[in-house]
Order: sequence, then structure tokens, then C-alpha cells
Amino acid sequence: MSQNPVIRHALTVKRADDFAQWYQEVISEAEMAEESGVRGCMVIKPWGYGIWERIQAVMDARIKEAGVENCYFPLFIPLSYFAKEAEHVEGFAKEMAVVTHHRLIGDGKGGLVPDPEAKLEEPLIVRPTSETVIGAAMARWIQSWRDLPLLTNQWANVVRWEMRTRMFLRTSEFLWQEGHTAHGDREDAMAETLRALEMYRSFAEGSLAMPVIAGEKPENERFPGAVATYSIEAMMQDGKALQAGTSHYLGTGFAEAAGIRYQDREGGQQFCHTTSWGVSTRLIGGVIMTHGDDDGLRVPPEIAPHQIVIVPMLRDVPEDAEIVEYCKALQKELAALRAFDEPLRVHCDLRAGKAANKRWAWVKKGAPLIVEIGGRDVAGGNVSWFRRDVMYNDAGKLASSIDPREKFVGIAAAVIEDIQTCLFNEAEKRRNASIHTGVSTLGDLAEFYSESQRYPGWVKTSWARPTGAELEAVTARLKELKLTIRNTPMDSGTPSGKCIFTGKDAVEKIYIARSY
Amino acid sequence: MSQNPVIRHALTVKRADDFAQWYQEVISEAEMAEESGVRGCMVIKPWGYGIWERIQAVMDARIKEAGVENCYFPLFIPLSYFAKEAEHVEGFAKEMAVVTHHRLIGDGKGGLVPDPEAKLEEPLIVRPTSETVIGAAMARWIQSWRDLPLLTNQWANVVRWEMRTRMFLRTSEFLWQEGHTAHGDREDAMAETLRALEMYRSFAEGSLAMPVIAGEKPENERFPGAVATYSIEAMMQDGKALQAGTSHYLGTGFAEAAGIRYQDREGGQQFCHTTSWGVSTRLIGGVIMTHGDDDGLRVPPEIAPHQIVIVPMLRDVPEDAEIVEYCKALQKELAALRAFDEPLRVHCDLRAGKAANKRWAWVKKGAPLIVEIGGRDVAGGNVSWFRRDVMYNDAGKLASSIDPREKFVGIAAAVIEDIQTCLFNEAEKRRNASIHTGVSTLGDLAEFYSESQRYPGWVKTSWARPTGAELEAVTARLKELKLTIRNTPMDSGTPSGKCIFTGKDAVEKIYIARSY
Repeated sequence: MSQNPVIRHALTVKRADDFAQWYQEVISEAEMAEESGVRGCMVIKPWGYGIWERIQAVMDARIKEAGVENCYFPLFIPLSYFAKEAEHVEGFAKEMAVVTHHRLIGDGKGGLVPDPEAKLEEPLIVRPTSETVIGAAMARWIQSWRDLPLLTNQWANVVRWEMRTRMFLRTSEFLWQEGHTAHGDREDAMAETLRALEMYRSFAEGSLAMPVIAGEKPENERFPGAVATYSIEAMMQDGKALQAGTSHYLGTGFAEAAGIRYQDREGGQQFCHTTSWGVSTRLIGGVIMTHGDDDGLRVPPEIAPHQIVIVPMLRDVPEDAEIVEYCKALQKELAALRAFDEPLRVHCDLRAGKAANKRWAWVKKGAPLIVEIGGRDVAGGNVSWFRRDVMYNDAGKLASSIDPREKFVGIAAAVIEDIQTCLFNEAEKRRNASIHTGVSTLGDLAEFYSESQRYPGWVKTSWARPTGAELEAVTARLKELKLTIRNTPMDSGTPSGKCIFTGKDAVEKIYIARSY
Repeated sequence: MSQNPVIRHALTVKRADDFAQWYQEVISEAEMAEESGVRGCMVIKPWGYGIWERIQAVMDARIKEAGVENCYFPLFIPLSYFAKEAEHVEGFAKEMAVVTHHRLIGDGKGGLVPDPEAKLEEPLIVRPTSETVIGAAMARWIQSWRDLPLLTNQWANVVRWEMRTRMFLRTSEFLWQEGHTAHGDREDAMAETLRALEMYRSFAEGSLAMPVIAGEKPENERFPGAVATYSIEAMMQDGKALQAGTSHYLGTGFAEAAGIRYQDREGGQQFCHTTSWGVSTRLIGGVIMTHGDDDGLRVPPEIAPHQIVIVPMLRDVPEDAEIVEYCKALQKELAALRAFDEPLRVHCDLRAGKAANKRWAWVKKGAPLIVEIGGRDVAGGNVSWFRRDVMYNDAGKLASSIDPREKFVGIAAAVIEDIQTCLFNEAEKRRNASIHTGVSTLGDLAEFYSESQRYPGWVKTSWARPTGAELEAVTARLKELKLTIRNTPMDSGTPSGKCIFTGKDAVEKIYIARSY
């Protein structure tokens, strides 16, 4: 038995060789998404969209449990709303899709052009986020303390014009949820901000099996206008950080701009304290770069559109009918089981095509558990199956098991739940091994992130939380090293030692990393 | 006991007095939606959006059952895609939102304007429907007969610029699902077209309790480019028709324009036959105008966000705690029951505010079953409750029942299912009474729809299915009477008699009506 068997993997590019190219190949080979022909916009294909639907279903249930109600707000926002915001908010982003006309006419040469007669008096912006239009609604809806807290959320598409796009990570159009809440005081609003952060953390670690650090962003990384911005940060397999969700405490600034006032119990007028929080289709990019391997994607079972895929091994012979019947009966039996408090999602792949091709298609898509049924399995009353998370044995062969059908059905749900746990443990172990704590000077930091280090991971160190110009200098120095401060972890405690930047007494821990 | 008791209803406008105004008041008082401040776009509030979420959940399950897979396609479509379509398709609609710039800059006077430097080379259109962009994807995805049928669907927002808007019925932005499928031959594509039509019919009648006529639209009402267009038509309480869903067989025309070809089993190249089918937030307008009454909305239980609402009658006294506890325990007990094969959706309204106000708020929202619990109910172990569908007794009083808690819990799920049935039966009886079959000449028709008739309903008659110029003349005559042909019902049979328009032998039945 060879200790380092040579495995012929399903992808042509390995993570270790070209991570960016590998990422693109996973998306393409797992049939998750593709370029649409429309600049910066992707087509999300059934397997990718199915994962998003699962993310939505699980997250939406938690949002509703927290008493937040879903609404739908307009796609278009009048230009004047942004003019108001631009006044108030430094760092206001202006790369947005602008609608200027509402009709096409023939150009007389067989083409179409925007009708000059149909120019809008005021241009409309395709929402990059809905703070302004939701703020205006809140101002209408809130009169008294009885109306508080007002907890709203929307699932929607948003557009931010991007020059360099990467599928799921940075696209001009993306899908997300945006929670917007209004509260009577700072304490209540901050509690909501942190509730959303914790919801994201537990969702990422539980449902996505993706370990994250929940913490506060430094002031220069705050959402424009926010008093405090929190994030969850995940480590990708190339050691870079992915900001996978954010939650903002907005103070009363947005309420003042939008006129969100309430009458308190004593009859006085108060501005509300507001929050906003969101996650997007970017999470799918995080799942790929956390769990993908050189055979393609591995989808955590909780968000897998199909948790078990049954591939009948058909040969265009009369015995095929028996195999199909056996597979359908097995599917029905498995679908009656439950994992994660939901019925198992079991798919039987009856499409035309060779069984081996179908197997590898599901491997590349990362279905958590793959069953293959041939005539011999039917005859013996067996099930041949393998786990996608640990596909190979020590000899580098597919680690397929053959079990009596009854035994397999007896363990299937537990295996599905175990795959979820194993994916998390694997990712957490790798993440923890790539968090380095021995870096305490800027020189060390520069050396640590020197070219020789391919996938250096993160540095966990301490700082004195400089502000203003001092922070700007730090940020500029980090930028030279292509680094950013990711966040200060929530469980930071009081660190001993000195600030890596200023040499002053440190006041909190921070994570520093390259990032997406 | 009075035979015609005077009831003080919750709305200020009655259906019989001003149906259009009543409609607006229902939407406002039931807190379903409101004007957004953005032309033609509405804000869908939690109760309205909750109904849409239920519609989505039920419909999406049926779409998936049929083997259709959800995808997501870009919001923006390049102008050139439409130029191609405009060439091919007569009646091509041009009222669309046109994106021409991708950046804002300051205008030097404190405002913002589209940056002239950031003008798009090719304008982008905000999708009014996704045929073109999905057609382009299908052309990439389909190579061989093995790839067929290709069954896709998307839930999305679309924009069609509308000059006169009405909430839920006609808004510039609306939410919908659009199914797009490609098939090897006419037969398979037509079967899918009719499957979608039947799905809509059974959904409308089953889940929305809204009786509809499924049938084929006359050729002049076809979707531009379609070979055949089918619809479901519902009758509103003012006798007008609402086209509530459409399904199109597109022949090979769209496939030819988009290049959707496949290699058949013999190795030849064939164009696909395609279909498309959709329903939108317009369905919610249909639900309002089918089931609403002078007290507001009545939501069919299958699509009600809450099926049972419990209102504790609190008086800011220590005994309140006991009432709240009793209500929560009742909620838990009820939520363990099932109706329509799903857990009962039970809400306990613990907001601050007077119990009577809360009761009437839920009446106006149309929660199917409302429970009120006061100290006396707790003491006696009882439940006070009433059905929203039959709210008043013969004396014009609220038909509230008091039952022992155990008894109420024992019947609650059956009552919820019965409300669904009763709403359908009531709507069907009214609809059938307003379909008139005695009209067989154009003179009769004109008289039937004369001013004296307030809510005349529909005419079911026969015609010879004229085409071309003959049909245009018919359409023009009908237009003078503000009428349209709605559809030829699927179960039309072979009618005897003469064509109402031409006097020729009739070949099929048709419905004529005023419409939304």
C-alpha cells in the first residue's frame, strides 16, 4: 500500500497549483453558475441556485423566529434620495446603474435606441442597498414607542457596478437579504445588531460548516455612516479572509437623515436608533473555497439541494427496469428519514447517459452521499455508496462501501449529519492551523507575508485601537503589504503586550489577513 | 330579530358603492402595500408579502414536483437582444426602463448627476420578461436530445413602465415566476404548456379558493410571437375578468431567433419547441377582489400567513400574565395540529394596544379565524372565537362562539379547512350566477353591457373563431363596448348555434367580459 497514492482527480486544476483558476473550474464543472453575456451579471444554474434556496430557507426561518417581518421595497430609488445621503455620508459609493429613459424607439436603421421623448425628469438608481427607501418607509410607519422595535427584512437583488467581477464573490448584480430595524434606544439597537451577528455566526458554522470569527471592524472599515460595524470572517483554503456577513449599528444618523422619529412614553419626540445587516450569494463563494477539493465542490448536507443522490447503473437492457424500481423504492425509503430535523432530500438520477459520467458529475457537484445501484446490488439486496467528504481510502481508491439495504437505510441519516460535522471539523482544524500568533512587530508581519509564503493564513495579534490619522497611517502601511485588519473578535478579552503598530499598550486582539 | 340588520362595517367604502375605492381601502387598511414614493413601484408590507411568500411556497413545490428547476438570470438585458426580438415580433412593447450610465458624480451644486464619462456603450434594459436572456442560455445548454426537455423557472422582479398603475394589478415593478421550457417536438411542448395551465387552474381554485376558467386566448390576445396562449380568468366581485396566469406555446419561433437547436436521435439538427408560463403578484389583487368584503380582506387559509390569530384581552393589570400564559399554551397546542398537510400557522398578538383595535386590525387583514381570550375565558377554560368568512349572525352581531378549550382544539384544523371550502363555494356560486348564456347577438351584447347594468358579469356565447381582418373587426366592435374576449374554455365541446359576430355556424364557446 502506497503512502502517497497518485489519485487522478476530477478537476484539471488543483487548489495548490492555481487557486483562482481552480475556483472558476469548480463553478463551471459543478454547474453552479456561468457568465451571462451581460457585463458583471451571472446566470445562477440549478445546482448553485438550489444551494441559495437552501441558504434562504434556513436563514429565513431564523429571521422570522427573531420576530423580523419580510417586506418588499422598490428596485428603483430616486436620485434625490442619494443626493441627501451623499451630503451626510463620507465614502458614499457612486458606482451604480442609472435609469434615465423609460422607452425604446426604432433608430430608423432597424435598431432600437432610448426614446429622447421618454427621458425621466429625475433619474432612478437601481438599488445598491435599500437604506434610503426603507428609511423613508420607517418614517411613515413609526409614530410612537408602541411601534418599536420595527423589524423588517427583504430578500432582493441589488446592483453595484463592479469593474472586476468574480462569480459569487463580486458581481454587479447579486442576491441578498437586508435586515433593517428601528429601536427606541441604543441598548435595544445594539442588542439587535449583535443578535444578527450571532445569527450569522451560528448559521455559517452550523449550516455552512464554515468556521468564522465574529467581531467588530476597525473604524475605517465601517459601513459609511455606521457607528459600529461587525462582521463574520471566514478563512478560505488559500488563507485569505472572506467577509461573509455584516451587521451595523447605525446610531441615530440615518434616522435623522430620514426623519424616523417616535413619541416616547413621556410624550417627547425621539430619533430612532437603527441597524442593518446582510448576507448575500457571496456565501456560496465562501462554501466553495472552504469545502471544495480537487474533485470539485463538497456541499455541507444542511444546504445541499440533494443530500443523497442515487445513480442507477443502467445498460440499456431489460434488467434496467428492475434496477430503476429498486432505486425508486430506496429513494422513497430514505426520503422518509430525517436529518437536521427535516426530511432527507434524496434524488434519483434517471437521466439518459452513462452511470460513470453521472457519478462524476455528482462528485463534482459535491452531493454529500452518492449511491450507485447495479444489477448485482439488486440481486444481493445491497447498496453501494460513498461519502463525498472522504472519498478515497489510503490506497487512493474510491472508498465505496457495500451494505445490506436495511443496514444502509438504518445509518443513512446519521451519516448525513456526520458529514456536516466532519466538514466543519476539517475546515476548523485547517483554519486554526493557519492562524499565527507569533507576529508582534511590523517587520515580522512584512516578513510573514513575504512572497515566499504561498498561503500564509492570518495573523492574530494585538493593537492599541488607534483612531483617526494614526489609524490611517496603519491602514496605508498594511495596504502596501496587501493586508487589512479583518476584525476584533467578540471574545477578545484584555490582551497583554504591545500594539503591533504603535508600540503602545495593547487594548484588544485583531486579525490581519489578505482578503477577497 | 331583524331580517336586514344594519351592520357597521370596518371599512368606510362599501364594494357596492365604489369598487375601485373599496379596493384601495382594503389594501391600505389590511396593511398589504402602499405607494413607495417611487413612480409605479409599491412597498409590499408584511401582510401582503406574507401572502406572496405563501403563494410562492405552494406554487414552488408544484413547480419542483413537475421536474422544473429554478435558476436565476440577469436583471439587465443588453439592448441588442431586444432589437433582434423587435425584428421578429410584431406588437413588441417598448415601455421599459433603460440604464444608460453606471456612475453618479457631483454636479458642483451639491447635487448628483449621471457621470457623462460613465455612459454605457450599449444601454441595458431592466428585464420586462426574460425570454431573450434565457433563450441565449438554452442555446448554450442544449446540444442533444438527451438534454431535453429542459425545464427552468425563475422567481424574479420585472419592470414594465406603466402610465396608470394600480397596486398589485398593474405596477411598473412586479414580482413573478416565469417558467421557460424547451422540448424536442410540438407534442411535448404543448403537453408542458397545458400542464402549466392546469397547475395554475388547480392552484387558483385550490389554494386561492378563486374559481377560474382555463382556456385559450383568441389569436389577437396572444403573447407576441406565441403560437398559442392560454389563460386562467377569474371573475372579480364587480363582474370584471382578471387574467390571473398565462401559459404560452411558442412553437419554434423563439428557438430560431435564439439558436436553440438539438441533435436528434438520428443525428439531424432540429430547432426546439419552447414554452413560457407565469403568474405574478397580480394574483394578490385577484384574492382581494374575489374574497374581500366590507370589513376588509378575507384570506383563504392555505395562503394566510397566520391561519389563527389569538388576541389576548389585556387590561394592564396583574391578571394579564395569566391570560398571556393561557394564550401561549393554546398557540402551542394549535400549532401542533395540521391543516392542508402542513402545521397550522398560529399567531399570538402580544403587541401593546387595545384588544378591540387588534381584533379589528385582524378582521381587516382577513385572518381566517380569530380567537379572543379574556380573564373569563381563562377562568372557565374556554376559547372565544369567530370565523372571518361568516362573521355575522342573522341579527347582524359578531357570530362569536365560546367553546371549552379542548373542544375548540379538537375542531380548529377542520374549521380552517372548511373556511377554505366555503370561500371557494361562495365565490363560485357568485361567479356562476354572473355568467350569462342568453346573449346571442351583438345587439343583445350591447344592451347587456349598457350603462344601466352596474356589475353585469360575463357573457358565455359561441363564435366561428374568425381570424385576421374579420377578427380585427370583431375586436374593434367589442372595444367600443369596452369588452374583450377572455378565452375559449378548455372543456368547450362542440357548440350548436351561430357565431355571435358573423352569423356563421359556431365552432366553440367563448367568454366575453370587461376586464382589468
